[in-house]
Amino acid sequence: MTHPTNQTPFGTGLIVRQHSPVNLESPFDQLDSFLTPNELFYIRSHFPTPSLRAEDHVLRIEGDVRNSFTISMDELRKMPSQTRPVTLECAGNGRVFLAPSVEGAQWEFGAVGTAEWTGVPLSALLERAGLAESACEAVFEGADRGQPKITPAPPGEVLYARSVPIALKDDILIAYQMNGEDIPPDHGFPLRAIVPRHFGMASVKWLTKIRIVSEPFQGYWQTADYGYWAYENELPVLRPLGAMVLKSSIARPRIREVVKAGEPYTVFGAAWAGELPVAQVEISADGGVTWVVAEIIDESRPGAWQRWKFEWQVPTQAGSYRLMSRARDSAGNVQPSEHDKSFGTYVIHHTIPVEVFVK
Amino acid sequence: MTHPTNQTPFGTGLIVRQHSPVNLESPFDQLDSFLTPNELFYIRSHFPTPSLRAEDHVLRIEGDVRNSFTISMDELRKMPSQTRPVTLECAGNGRVFLAPSVEGAQWEFGAVGTAEWTGVPLSALLERAGLAESACEAVFEGADRGQPKITPAPPGEVLYARSVPIALKDDILIAYQMNGEDIPPDHGFPLRAIVPRHFGMASVKWLTKIRIVSEPFQGYWQTADYGYWAYENELPVLRPLGAMVLKSSIARPRIREVVKAGEPYTVFGAAWAGELPVAQVEISADGGVTWVVAEIIDESRPGAWQRWKFEWQVPTQAGSYRLMSRARDSAGNVQPSEHDKSFGTYVIHHTIPVEVFVK
Repeated sequence: MTHPTNQTPFGTGLIVRQHSPVNLESPFDQLDSFLTPNELFYIRSHFPTPSLRAEDHVLRIEGDVRNSFTISMDELRKMPSQTRPVTLECAGNGRVFLAPSVEGAQWEFGAVGTAEWTGVPLSALLERAGLAESACEAVFEGADRGQPKITPAPPGEVLYARSVPIALKDDILIAYQMNGEDIPPDHGFPLRAIVPRHFGMASVKWLTKIRIVSEPFQGYWQTADYGYWAYENELPVLRPLGAMVLKSSIARPRIREVVKAGEPYTVFGAAWAGELPVAQVEISADGGVTWVVAEIIDESRPGAWQRWKFEWQVPTQAGSYRLMSRARDSAGNVQPSEHDKSFGTYVIHHTIPVEVFVK
Repeated sequence: MTHPTNQTPFGTGLIVRQHSPVNLESPFDQLDSFLTPNELFYIRSHFPTPSLRAEDHVLRIEGDVRNSFTISMDELRKMPSQTRPVTLECAGNGRVFLAPSVEGAQWEFGAVGTAEWTGVPLSALLERAGLAESACEAVFEGADRGQPKITPAPPGEVLYARSVPIALKDDILIAYQMNGEDIPPDHGFPLRAIVPRHFGMASVKWLTKIRIVSEPFQGYWQTADYGYWAYENELPVLRPLGAMVLKSSIARPRIREVVKAGEPYTVFGAAWAGELPVAQVEISADGGVTWVVAEIIDESRPGAWQRWKFEWQVPTQAGSYRLMSRARDSAGNVQPSEHDKSFGTYVIHHTIPVEVFVK
């Protein structure tokens, strides 16, 4: 698509949500191409970016496997590779919209982005290692470390680590390229696990180790942090966050943007989902009273967002208007209108009205 | 034993640590008999005490069993019963001694007590229900409910619930009497699970349901609260608190008590452990430089404390002295001198010096 003239051009940098460790938000109102350029891709780091050198870097595969092994970056690059677009979204994306306000980085819409990742499928590495029958999860360990803050927190420094079900092994890339370049330092150089359809915390940066375990891993970043309350027999049980959920966000207009009365305006945004594909996006320009179907621009690819647009005939009547978008998935589920508190300060995918001024 | 004349008599009530819900501490300096009288037994409640009537009360056994059933108090009382002394200790006992200070009820030494509990072994109920082979844990549900406060907390009201490994079934009593009387309301009337050797949070009060599950239960009171950090492959993993640990506490003298120079003084206390029996208690009257063995008064009974005493010849030199006790278990483990921060605000069993003034 061509960039509509009534919107700002690309390239104005990232929004600082936390300076150290670096947490920078993509300017979502500048959403344009299907792939987010590396320099505009959101950064969510828990600890300072480790200084790693590709020449020295090795990945260790161990645990419930027949043959533990260590592999260099050179060897990894020689293995058959795959390249695929994957949308990553921080589990806390949209947190600034929660009321009352909560602790944590105050992301607006832009802790999400899509890049083309190149690497080796996890399954190829596990085939070489020889999975034990008892294998249940893969624990990804990063080189980043520090003292976690959210309670209950373990004492002292902890390596960032996160597990995923072994059943996802065909889907996961052990990636060394992002949009055709070496992965930039803040995005995980030289190696990052890319877990499609899961929130970004599973796509461990600065990957050093894959440990196969036979019981669910109960590490910090899937219990004290990045957990949610599921209900079993009416009792809450703590589970690790996993798959992303059905969501659409409006990129343009921005919140409180002034738009010209009586003229056409291209409302623009993206939609994505976790387990199921997005089937439809609807837009309301009257605060949710009436809805019309938006045009989806991108083809459906598993694990990647789809941009959409809607040609809005801006009313001639000046005043404040509330634009809303809502996505439906292939099973007919629709984006909710309220935040589900079982997810605490995460999984914020309810419809966020965008108020604009018509003048 | 007779009560030494230089110490305060029994019966002066409990120490308020929290007024609502009721959290009252036993006056540990009045430790006398092996069994703690019901009226001096510490109370640790998470929510208001439910009003339950024995005539109406039923216990439901369900989950991974062949025959779910519901049993009344009358039927339970007709089953073969057992009576045994069990020491219960709050997992936060001693919290006031942590530095820097932490959130939570500020227990001194007295969130511990021993009572004789009468009830039906859990194994007898599970035999009637017919355990499935997959049975892994028993989840005890209480009738008490409320909004949990420690984060991450689920939204809304939650029933108090806690699981224990099914392997403990022969050891656990489903109790209806405490020291020969109906269990008092604040201690769980009419029915309480008594889990010997485990911290008190496992001994669920106001018991309404026993649900057998085939996977570890990840409820609130064994994850967000009452969890600790174990280490696997050098990474912290969140585990539910379980067994009590090796500990001894000095009941008399009290902290900052004034004792008479040159006279004998009976230092008095109790010791207990989790998995292994206590083998020895040692006392230091010089802040840990030299240690002498105390006399253990009670025989060793699994799951019950043992009182001990030491005839201290108070120095003739006036001044400040630091008394300390430390227990050893049958495997030679000794009580630590520092709090293990992996346990956060729980499992406080390091040696606490008791400073006294000799005049």
